[in-house]
Amino acid sequence: MTHPSFSSDLARLICPRSVVLVGASDRPQSIGGRTLTNLIDHSTIEGELFLVNPTKTELRGRQCWPSVASLPQTPDVAIIAVPASGALQVLEDCAARQVPFAIILTSGFSEAGLEGEQAQARMKEIANRSGMRIYGPNCPGLTNVNQRMGMTFSPSFPHDLIKGPIGLATQGGGLGRNVMQAMERGIGIGLWASTGNEVDLQVADFIRYMATAPDIKVIVTLLEGIKDGPRFLSALQCAADNGKPVIALKVGKSEYGRRAAQSHTASLTGSAEVNSAVFRQYGVIEVNDIDELVDTAWLFARALPSERAGVGIYCSSGGTSALTADAVGLAGLTLPEFSAETTEVLRSRLPDYAAIGNPVDTTAVILSDAELIEQTLSAVAADPHLGCVIAPISLDYGETTVRLAQTIIAAQQNVDSLIVPIWMSDRLGEGYQKLVAAGFAPPRSVNKAIAAIERWVAYGRWRRANPPNPGAAIVLPTIAPAGDFLTRSLSESQAKAQLKDAGISLLPQGLGTSVDQACALADGMGYPVVAKVASAQIVHKSDIGGVKVGLQDAAQVREAWRDIMAAAARHQPEAAVDGLLIEKMAPRGGTELMVGVTRDPVFGHVMTFGLGGIYVEVLRDVTRRMLPIGARDAAAMVREIRSFALLDGARGRPKADLAALEALLVRVSDFVVARADRIEEMDLNPVWVGATGEGALPLDAVIIERVPA
Amino acid sequence: MTHPSFSSDLARLICPRSVVLVGASDRPQSIGGRTLTNLIDHSTIEGELFLVNPTKTELRGRQCWPSVASLPQTPDVAIIAVPASGALQVLEDCAARQVPFAIILTSGFSEAGLEGEQAQARMKEIANRSGMRIYGPNCPGLTNVNQRMGMTFSPSFPHDLIKGPIGLATQGGGLGRNVMQAMERGIGIGLWASTGNEVDLQVADFIRYMATAPDIKVIVTLLEGIKDGPRFLSALQCAADNGKPVIALKVGKSEYGRRAAQSHTASLTGSAEVNSAVFRQYGVIEVNDIDELVDTAWLFARALPSERAGVGIYCSSGGTSALTADAVGLAGLTLPEFSAETTEVLRSRLPDYAAIGNPVDTTAVILSDAELIEQTLSAVAADPHLGCVIAPISLDYGETTVRLAQTIIAAQQNVDSLIVPIWMSDRLGEGYQKLVAAGFAPPRSVNKAIAAIERWVAYGRWRRANPPNPGAAIVLPTIAPAGDFLTRSLSESQAKAQLKDAGISLLPQGLGTSVDQACALADGMGYPVVAKVASAQIVHKSDIGGVKVGLQDAAQVREAWRDIMAAAARHQPEAAVDGLLIEKMAPRGGTELMVGVTRDPVFGHVMTFGLGGIYVEVLRDVTRRMLPIGARDAAAMVREIRSFALLDGARGRPKADLAALEALLVRVSDFVVARADRIEEMDLNPVWVGATGEGALPLDAVIIERVPA
Repeated sequence: MTHPSFSSDLARLICPRSVVLVGASDRPQSIGGRTLTNLIDHSTIEGELFLVNPTKTELRGRQCWPSVASLPQTPDVAIIAVPASGALQVLEDCAARQVPFAIILTSGFSEAGLEGEQAQARMKEIANRSGMRIYGPNCPGLTNVNQRMGMTFSPSFPHDLIKGPIGLATQGGGLGRNVMQAMERGIGIGLWASTGNEVDLQVADFIRYMATAPDIKVIVTLLEGIKDGPRFLSALQCAADNGKPVIALKVGKSEYGRRAAQSHTASLTGSAEVNSAVFRQYGVIEVNDIDELVDTAWLFARALPSERAGVGIYCSSGGTSALTADAVGLAGLTLPEFSAETTEVLRSRLPDYAAIGNPVDTTAVILSDAELIEQTLSAVAADPHLGCVIAPISLDYGETTVRLAQTIIAAQQNVDSLIVPIWMSDRLGEGYQKLVAAGFAPPRSVNKAIAAIERWVAYGRWRRANPPNPGAAIVLPTIAPAGDFLTRSLSESQAKAQLKDAGISLLPQGLGTSVDQACALADGMGYPVVAKVASAQIVHKSDIGGVKVGLQDAAQVREAWRDIMAAAARHQPEAAVDGLLIEKMAPRGGTELMVGVTRDPVFGHVMTFGLGGIYVEVLRDVTRRMLPIGARDAAAMVREIRSFALLDGARGRPKADLAALEALLVRVSDFVVARADRIEEMDLNPVWVGATGEGALPLDAVIIERVPA
Repeated sequence: MTHPSFSSDLARLICPRSVVLVGASDRPQSIGGRTLTNLIDHSTIEGELFLVNPTKTELRGRQCWPSVASLPQTPDVAIIAVPASGALQVLEDCAARQVPFAIILTSGFSEAGLEGEQAQARMKEIANRSGMRIYGPNCPGLTNVNQRMGMTFSPSFPHDLIKGPIGLATQGGGLGRNVMQAMERGIGIGLWASTGNEVDLQVADFIRYMATAPDIKVIVTLLEGIKDGPRFLSALQCAADNGKPVIALKVGKSEYGRRAAQSHTASLTGSAEVNSAVFRQYGVIEVNDIDELVDTAWLFARALPSERAGVGIYCSSGGTSALTADAVGLAGLTLPEFSAETTEVLRSRLPDYAAIGNPVDTTAVILSDAELIEQTLSAVAADPHLGCVIAPISLDYGETTVRLAQTIIAAQQNVDSLIVPIWMSDRLGEGYQKLVAAGFAPPRSVNKAIAAIERWVAYGRWRRANPPNPGAAIVLPTIAPAGDFLTRSLSESQAKAQLKDAGISLLPQGLGTSVDQACALADGMGYPVVAKVASAQIVHKSDIGGVKVGLQDAAQVREAWRDIMAAAARHQPEAAVDGLLIEKMAPRGGTELMVGVTRDPVFGHVMTFGLGGIYVEVLRDVTRRMLPIGARDAAAMVREIRSFALLDGARGRPKADLAALEALLVRVSDFVVARADRIEEMDLNPVWVGATGEGALPLDAVIIERVPA
């Protein structure tokens, strides 16, 4: 769909040599006036800044041009701050002049009713036709802090002064600005793209840019909806290939949030569970609130996690030390024992009544001895088992705490591992300010610090299991074909026949279209058998009495035929009944699991795997993957569910046939991908899994296909 | 145990008419010097302040007395700031003088090794013997903010100026002081008791005091360990009877935290799951961190929850509004639709492009119109479905945000329901300060605000289900008899015989001591049957092949006898085998649950109920109650587990026999309470529950009894 001349290199947009502001104004509070101030007073523009305003000849001592056409050269970026009614004409002018990038600050498009939507559709046409790339509309602009370039009307730009390694890509501007205000505690954000209605450029494009931008180490994104799944995933893949962590806050995790986000951005929000699963698959670090986002991003900005996953605690209050140890344990992090060297330093230097294990409780007595703190904290931080050391500061005691802060700053100079001070007090005195100035941006509570560290350690684990592999082909999701369609459900015997053709093992089974044929089938496969009503129209077979299990002989099969046919006639007289599906009964023992596939509007086919049978809906012990999956994904999925212990021989049970189970998952994936245009949904529940060698067998199968409308 | 003359009314301790400071000093940094400063310069003492120091005749212009014995009158409280070596003698002097309360600031007792422990034991003797009540030792003292009385050496007392309705009871001083520093954002804490080593007075005693203190509305406690379960529970009951919420942070939720807390306070921490269950039972609001504790406490301090459980959201940023709605949904809170009146106000006043449902997104355009905000916010807050309205402030935009803050303050004047502003920005400008000054103490992130509101709403629900009932008898936990003991496990048939005697229904069963007797038993009860090895020494019967299910006739029983006896001889040749326990097999269908009882060191016998069979350990879908329980508790427990849907007819299953199940729980409780001295542990797993009328039958039973050593 993308125009061949579209520039995929956003460097000239983000750091342009020359810029034109269309709609420059001398009214200081107008969009055009504020943007003018940001560009003239607060930005560093390498080349020319042109102003366009047909009603003026000059503005703030600079020449004004009547139109883009009249400019003496073609700028890299046109910033458009004219009213909505004039925006399309200006865009046409820019396209004619072959301006490569346009930033449309103006509101009043798809967020503002039908007329706006139509105008935005025309914008899209201009972009497609001309190859000019469009940013916005309905956005605050683009804020390049590292190169001091404020292509934005935000009156806050003059305060956006803390350069740094975080790149921020958001849709709506409000939450993004909230993150920017974290600069107040020393968080350095080098670039903020806020893409508004995303008529062309999307958050994904900026993630991709940041993935290779040398001044960005950590990518942060706030998402209300994802417009283009494949584009988004390929940007994530690019970030992963370049070793850059992506931290994401995605709104729409609950029904209320989904509705609110949809009404705000009119974008598809998809399913939160699917989103989270895709994030996990790509190593994206998902967070749940802005404060978490900032704390987590800053930890990554300070350092990427090392191989040393252990956590140390160094504290001068026993209660705080216990509280922190508690949180470490609840988060599943590890407090390793210190090495003999570390222990010896602590034992010889700290007073007798101090606790010298991990957590260290120095007691408050030593707070007056900065040298002692520096020595012992440095020793802990240099311990070979630790990747980071948490130093909770529970109180602001004025001078004493200032000294403690200085000691932490000094100790960090001596060691590679991260020292993470936590500023727990609501009193933000000089000690706090010193830590902020030194770039620690201390989290403000134990749980916030631990949540960030937990994600930092988990990312390190993911990273080691998934090393960057830039040459590898990118696996893209199966995307639904366009056009209206209906759906239809296959009968169980049709569905199982398709699975069998695809090489998926099933219990012996067959369709008996008469009572005699049913008995013959059962005799042939041996008892006990199950009999199920065979009808594409009867979906909930058990609910109407359409299933009989444990049939021991032909007489019981005959009785089942009679009962089931009567039940079907009673409950669904209109259903066409093909006969009885006769199936060998699963052996005793084993575990009931489930494998399902749905089609997500953003990410295509997604597989759900988990505990099956009656427990699936109640306990929701499931995991998900975007398709296709390979053997490694299948093995990981099986191990991700809580019930894995049951498959792995818990309570003296035999180990389940994991090889067969994993093979089943891969075959189902292949099956769906080969029929991606057709399959809307499938549900194998239960899947019976026996002990090693006994196999993994779908006992029931539902397949829903799309058919042209 | 308690001395009959012990004063249970702590009013004279907390607000004494007269005080003696023993160990008053002119060294300003000493414990005695700092305490002197707090008493003279920063406290309001109704009557006399006496100073005792045998080496001085006067201090800061006040007379010094050589000893407590020499004082001209008996003070209400003696504050003891002498070194550990002299503390016991001073205590003896105080006891001789019949001083009712002593506060021992001195450290060096049970926290400091064996000698200290012995000294502390002597303190306890003095308290028991004299009736004098002792607070401490090893504590910062008692901080009475509302009456400006600082019986503490803390140099921070002069800053503890924000009076208020929160009462704080802690053990260690560090975390308590951290909570006190929340005064920085306007949190008013009227009283802080920090009970240190708790030789006599405990946190529980201060909870009980605060439960009836007229100036305390909300009780907050930080616990490292609970010394005396019954005393603690009776204090909680007293708080509940007086309609005062108790908010608790209990350290020791993870193994790391448990160990750290134990090494810090040497108190029993018990099981975190049991603690949490007991808290829930008494309506205690449990939190996980200090910031949560403060936000939650302040919400309660502002107002107790009303019957209106709905939440409203009023915001000027679409993204923030969606983020907040998301968090509300994830917390299980409700965003009701507005009433017609509210909707009409919003529709007529707000611009067309605003979202006027719940959440309201006014858009940023109206931020300049304070009157419009006040009208529309007041209308939302007055909506009859809402108990509180969340007003997230995502940005600090200087003057605009100051106006917004003032508008929120004004709107709150008009309505009963709480307006909860959230200050999301790290920039804490004048708008923030105005909200703090007006008593809003805004939470600092969406999730922190929602977590507090969730607990506020949940407490309201608990309160309505458990109205104050001051006349009711307090149900106290079963406490273990003192003394050493051993334990022994009953055989399954002994255990089941006891249960049967106690009126608990079981499947037909009997002990076959010979193969013929086993067959006769099976013939008598009808097939199929289960056969299990009968031996008190063989606990894990399945693991050694000691259980055979589904035996269809006498021949199979004979075969089972042979196999089981062989397996027992092979695996546990030393075990005394009584024969085979023959039991009628449970009917097909039904659900496997479990009922267990353990003895908690703090809270006595506790029942665990939940999903049974193989799932219990993997899925941990359980709930707990301290014993005894009644019918109402049993009904609540059954409904608390996630799997309740399975019992309640999910997926077309028959409804389970809930009446029988609830009766079983009550009978087990009665059974244990009647044998409280003897039963250490019991485990009924699985308990088979059939459809309505089919009963709830323990299929296996383990009872572990204590026997004298």
